[in-house]
Amino acid sequence: MADLTHLDEAGAARMVDVTAKPPTAREAVARGVVHMARETVTAIVDRAVAKGDVLAVARIAGIQGAKRTSELIPLCHPLAITAVAVELEPVVADGRVKIVARVKTTGPTGVEMEALTAVSVAALTLYDMVKAIDRAVVIGEICLEEKSGGRSGHWRRVAAAPAEQQETPPPSGRGLGGGRTE
Amino acid sequence: MADLTHLDEAGAARMVDVTAKPPTAREAVARGVVHMARETVTAIVDRAVAKGDVLAVARIAGIQGAKRTSELIPLCHPLAITAVAVELEPVVADGRVKIVARVKTTGPTGVEMEALTAVSVAALTLYDMVKAIDRAVVIGEICLEEKSGGRSGHWRRVAAAPAEQQETPPPSGRGLGGGRTE
Amino acid sequence: MADLTHLDEAGAARMVDVTAKPPTAREAVARGVVHMARETVTAIVDRAVAKGDVLAVARIAGIQGAKRTSELIPLCHPLAITAVAVELEPVVADGRVKIVARVKTTGPTGVEMEALTAVSVAALTLYDMVKAIDRAVVIGEICLEEKSGGRSGHWRRVAAAPAEQQETPPPSGRGLGGGRTE
Amino acid sequence: MADLTHLDEAGAARMVDVTAKPPTAREAVARGVVHMARETVTAIVDRAVAKGDVLAVARIAGIQGAKRTSELIPLCHPLAITAVAVELEPVVADGRVKIVARVKTTGPTGVEMEALTAVSVAALTLYDMVKAIDRAVVIGEICLEEKSGGRSGHWRRVAAAPAEQQETPPPSGRGLGGGRTE
Amino acid sequence: MADLTHLDEAGAARMVDVTAKPPTAREAVARGVVHMARETVTAIVDRAVAKGDVLAVARIAGIQGAKRTSELIPLCHPLAITAVAVELEPVVADGRVKIVARVKTTGPTGVEMEALTAVSVAALTLYDMVKAIDRAVVIGEICLEEKSGGRSGHWRRVAAAPAEQQETPPPSGRGLGGGRTE
Amino acid sequence: MADLTHLDEAGAARMVDVTAKPPTAREAVARGVVHMARETVTAIVDRAVAKGDVLAVARIAGIQGAKRTSELIPLCHPLAITAVAVELEPVVADGRVKIVARVKTTGPTGVEMEALTAVSVAALTLYDMVKAIDRAVVIGEICLEEKSGGRSGHWRRVAAAPAEQQETPPPSGRGLGGGRTE
Repeated sequence: MADLTHLDEAGAARMVDVTAKPPTAREAVARGVVHMARETVTAIVDRAVAKGDVLAVARIAGIQGAKRTSELIPLCHPLAITAVAVELEPVVADGRVKIVARVKTTGPTGVEMEALTAVSVAALTLYDMVKAIDRAVVIGEICLEEKSGGRSGHWRRVAAAPAEQQETPPPSGRGLGGGRTE
Repeated sequence: MADLTHLDEAGAARMVDVTAKPPTAREAVARGVVHMARETVTAIVDRAVAKGDVLAVARIAGIQGAKRTSELIPLCHPLAITAVAVELEPVVADGRVKIVARVKTTGPTGVEMEALTAVSVAALTLYDMVKAIDRAVVIGEICLEEKSGGRSGHWRRVAAAPAEQQETPPPSGRGLGGGRTE
Repeated sequence: MADLTHLDEAGAARMVDVTAKPPTAREAVARGVVHMARETVTAIVDRAVAKGDVLAVARIAGIQGAKRTSELIPLCHPLAITAVAVELEPVVADGRVKIVARVKTTGPTGVEMEALTAVSVAALTLYDMVKAIDRAVVIGEICLEEKSGGRSGHWRRVAAAPAEQQETPPPSGRGLGGGRTE
Repeated sequence: MADLTHLDEAGAARMVDVTAKPPTAREAVARGVVHMARETVTAIVDRAVAKGDVLAVARIAGIQGAKRTSELIPLCHPLAITAVAVELEPVVADGRVKIVARVKTTGPTGVEMEALTAVSVAALTLYDMVKAIDRAVVIGEICLEEKSGGRSGHWRRVAAAPAEQQETPPPSGRGLGGGRTE
Repeated sequence: MADLTHLDEAGAARMVDVTAKPPTAREAVARGVVHMARETVTAIVDRAVAKGDVLAVARIAGIQGAKRTSELIPLCHPLAITAVAVELEPVVADGRVKIVARVKTTGPTGVEMEALTAVSVAALTLYDMVKAIDRAVVIGEICLEEKSGGRSGHWRRVAAAPAEQQETPPPSGRGLGGGRTE
Repeated sequence: MADLTHLDEAGAARMVDVTAKPPTAREAVARGVVHMARETVTAIVDRAVAKGDVLAVARIAGIQGAKRTSELIPLCHPLAITAVAVELEPVVADGRVKIVARVKTTGPTGVEMEALTAVSVAALTLYDMVKAIDRAVVIGEICLEEKSGGRSGHWRRVAAAPAEQQETPPPSGRGLGGGRTE
């Protein structure tokens, strides 16, 4: 079985050594969903039409969150991010706001965690701004969508992402075979 | 319909004025789930038996994340947190690790966002440590479980939390009525 | 002559001792101006009409900057800010964007530096977003407008703030008598 | 008219993609002025003779501020700065302290914002240390002086910098033609 | 035997709950020593005479370090520090620079860790500035000297601090009885 | 006598210019000791057997501390660390916990300060967790053990490190000749 690379032989946590890995262009796309009442999505959209600040605040928080990934995740390597974009799509009918983050770098490791952190921080920020009117918001389906660059090549989630496909979270059995490395 | 308090009359983002609110003891409990392959949970558990570092790293990252909430969420007030605890429970049979964070403060606003941030950062840290063996991990069902202190009193999610109850995320209609203020 | 309180008798820097000062409600208003070509202000305004992100990014950066004041200014006391608002007003005819920041706290020291930091960071952020089309932008006239709370009471700049009144920066002689404590 | 590169086609903020830009040696020089009463400059100078801590604190704060630029400015790329120097020149007769910051890097984007941030944070720090004796201090004339490296080559402000030349801030018409790319 | 309060019954790390503890004025004094060649101390002193920046940089870094304690030490509570002073005393004859930090707060927990962090960061900064001329520098004897406020009252190290008394580090037996609570 | 490179000709602090230095693989090893009562080491070890969180918290804090070095040490260059490992070895009989940190990077400057910061933060974290049962803990003997990469080549402390060799801190005369550059 594959190994947990963040632990040494004795089981102690460490930052994996990537000194010998050459810097290459890398990209990762992550996504997530913030579930809320339809009225709450409507409130966001109405404000967005008028001024846009709700979605802008979440977008900017996501971008800044990506830059802080190595401070938040103890064993993450610091990376010089070269691009971040965060998209938020409110869908009134479904009572949800979809979030997609795309991050790039030129470095020895990937930006998977940076993309996931951008989605998480954007989702938390959205939560913060609507919590006064809707306390039952749920953040979910945060996952990697696509990843390229580095030794492992291009990877893309085989099935449609959970949020797209169905209301249920991915079954526990989808695990190791859930993606396809090209 | 209730208002988005983080926007002024013109729709511009602002940090809500809490100067006049008296400091009171407050507490919030949030939860979330990290879905992964059963083999991955097993790898975590096996390591945990040996040394415990995988869960310890996630727990500590969650605690530290709670302290950084006001840096991550643009309109959050800085707060002097007085207690944080993060629990992680790996459930091999379900292919998941459950996370619960409990945060307290004595201040003019609640620690809802701090508890949710602790869960999110612990979940991302767990993701980071297993991503080399399981790229299809999904973080989900992050929500507020309970909240007390302040003017709004005690609030508890009525239904069992999504992760407990069922595989499906909460339906979009549960919104405003999803909790009960006592 | 009044003393530089941030230096001890030997001239060494220190953080002034405010342990004995009681917490009181305090407020400060600061302002500044970003000078740029009229075409550049027009580009901001046109974008603002469409989507608002340029001004929103600067506003949010200013709010977040206020929260980081004690990290940036070595001898500043950490403070629990209770409110921040940052307004940006683009004036095409004058080739400028005016910035006003209002910050509140309940604490032993004032939020003068927090308001000034909010203005400075909002100004720098605006600069960053237009520098690709206008490299000769100048940030200026950053000053305290008003301050209340604490032992020194209410203070307001006597003359209209520099940016309002005239194109020239305040003459060097305005110094100690430039304000009026009520 | 040139485009605001920090916005995508829909007007949403993003971090500009610099993945494909090769790293080159880059340098930027920025400047600014802190206006204060002549007596205040004298107080700084007298202390500086004795121990130097007032100017040293501002200088160090400026250097550290440069390193935090990408945390403060939401759409700035993180950069590995390779040199920073901040000079402060108190001029008693004019009632001002002049600040010049010079920053270098080897990277895909310039250090213009880093130099401007160093000047701003040094100015705010100076303000903090003298505000107890002079509340009417004004920070101004913060601008880029010179920039080199990267595709756009060497750029230098044509006219003497505003602080050097005259008491008035640059007229709004100087904009796009205010510099000269060699 | 007394308990490790940072662990719960199951041995998991947590931030100790201080919600119920009333805020009181607290103070802590810590100290440490940076050992180096006599020539190195001389270089610092000579510079200090001329301009003072070496000791000023270390002093400021220590003050700023105190403010970051809760970010660095995972289970530390965030605290609103109300005073910090860091003294550095170069002693050429002994080949050492002594460091003393004094920190105050009004809060529910003490500032012991803040004082120790101030000493540590000042020591590391000194090391950084002399390492080009003396790579064998040793940082040592960092300990709490005195502590007051809160339920445990006033505590002072009984024996002279290690650096004062002797060249040897405190013997392992001094432990629990090493101080005296008045 | 060799020069203090962090000061310019006038004695003002600056970040040394490393723009022209090529990036090379670099590594540094630092060490330190936390002295405490034997009973305290026993408490740590007993907990470590059960769950491991005490040592895990210190280890993770050290790793994260290494990543924050350039924020803590004013004149340190930001660096993209490529590996960090922190080892803690409790020795009950001696009443001490030994700490060793190993840090790597590919960059224009070394990671000496990062390794020393990792040791210092791990030591402070350990102190924090045992201070409730042992207030007389002393942190000491923090020094560089080994360093490689860059122009100065491989360097290793000649004598056994202080903690290994003897109870006394290194005599002040060991200074400039204390290591050997191969």
